[in-house]
Amino acid sequence: MKTISEQGYIQQVSIDCVIFGYLDKKLHVLIPKLSFTGDFWCLPSGFVYEHEDTDEAARRVLQNRAGVSQAYLDQFLVMGKADRTSQAFLDRLIELNPEKLAAKQRHPNDYDWFVRRTISIGYYALVDMTQVVPQQQVMDESIGWYAIPSIPAMIMDHNQIVDKALERLRADLDQKPVAFHLLPETFTMRDVQDLYETILEKPFAANNFPKKILELNALERLEKKFTGAANKAPYLYRLRK
Amino acid sequence: MKTISEQGYIQQVSIDCVIFGYLDKKLHVLIPKLSFTGDFWCLPSGFVYEHEDTDEAARRVLQNRAGVSQAYLDQFLVMGKADRTSQAFLDRLIELNPEKLAAKQRHPNDYDWFVRRTISIGYYALVDMTQVVPQQQVMDESIGWYAIPSIPAMIMDHNQIVDKALERLRADLDQKPVAFHLLPETFTMRDVQDLYETILEKPFAANNFPKKILELNALERLEKKFTGAANKAPYLYRLRK
Repeated sequence: MKTISEQGYIQQVSIDCVIFGYLDKKLHVLIPKLSFTGDFWCLPSGFVYEHEDTDEAARRVLQNRAGVSQAYLDQFLVMGKADRTSQAFLDRLIELNPEKLAAKQRHPNDYDWFVRRTISIGYYALVDMTQVVPQQQVMDESIGWYAIPSIPAMIMDHNQIVDKALERLRADLDQKPVAFHLLPETFTMRDVQDLYETILEKPFAANNFPKKILELNALERLEKKFTGAANKAPYLYRLRK
Repeated sequence: MKTISEQGYIQQVSIDCVIFGYLDKKLHVLIPKLSFTGDFWCLPSGFVYEHEDTDEAARRVLQNRAGVSQAYLDQFLVMGKADRTSQAFLDRLIELNPEKLAAKQRHPNDYDWFVRRTISIGYYALVDMTQVVPQQQVMDESIGWYAIPSIPAMIMDHNQIVDKALERLRADLDQKPVAFHLLPETFTMRDVQDLYETILEKPFAANNFPKKILELNALERLEKKFTGAANKAPYLYRLRK
């Protein structure tokens, strides 16, 4: 078995992905839990191969954990503090899991790899939760959606990365038609308003909201939604290709 | 003399700084030219020491080239393409400068360091051009301000980094009171409007503009500017501490 440092990754650079989903008027984040004693949650992460674009590396992480690769994905921050190593996390993991680690017989170089300082390149992804089947990887005890604000305490600065991703998503909402990637393929204007109100944590006036959204010029109107009461039925929309 | 790889930098990560200044209704970028035959311009750049935050590294680059460290500085992009190496630039530099390079006796490992793929962390800085004395470094033939859009063709993807920085500056202008860092300590509302019109490349109505700016809640009003015609003199403003 190759050590991590023999696998052709660029050193001391990691990719961390905040994968957002939306369901039942709640914004969620996809978070795996490591299969070690000690309740270690962390963001879906990975390294960058020598001949791989950082965007490709992020898409690989997204594919591995959410099983989708075509979702909206945007690089939004760098976590570059020199003291953001995973030393404390690894010390605790090793202390709590001596037998499991002995059984896994990881190469000592792998620990060197993990305890060194890494610069994290942060991405956020927007997926349609109804289309995603979370993918449990070999190191995971579980992987699941956690609704904001009930996110577990994660290792290192990963909770802070989620906070920053949410901040960026909120800012992007004003400028770009990104939020629709969180909805199923077709949706009503009420669905859009619920989504915006959830993310921005404030109500919008129903008489103004559709105009504001349609001015983004990103949606096409389809047939009316079938509700049985035709004349009151709302129109369906979808994101223009 | 230590080789670059012996100087304690993180490998394959670089810092590139777009340092913006503003003078005479023109936005400028601070750009050094390398002291080699071949007209090589490039952004002020550097590497990150093992025990240095990436933000500190960027501030060090800013200090080295602009002689200031307290300016507005923001990390705004990552250039992560696998094929953005400096191989082509270095091949041409070596081809055109055989004698100069022989005289400098750089260690061959330094070339290995430079031709490898690097992930660039991009920062943009906003400085008061009237306070900056560009600092020529040992590798520079010259360093100077170039007005947009008359920026020289730089190595690698550095022109693209400037384009992206400008895009981000324009987006930030709508949301944050950043632009004032480009002005001298005190300024009139007309100065601010000129600045916004220059960066955004569009005119604003003079009757609306001050209201919009004052709503940012970032400025404090001082005495009137001395013009000799007291009753028509405009107020001076400065950025609130």
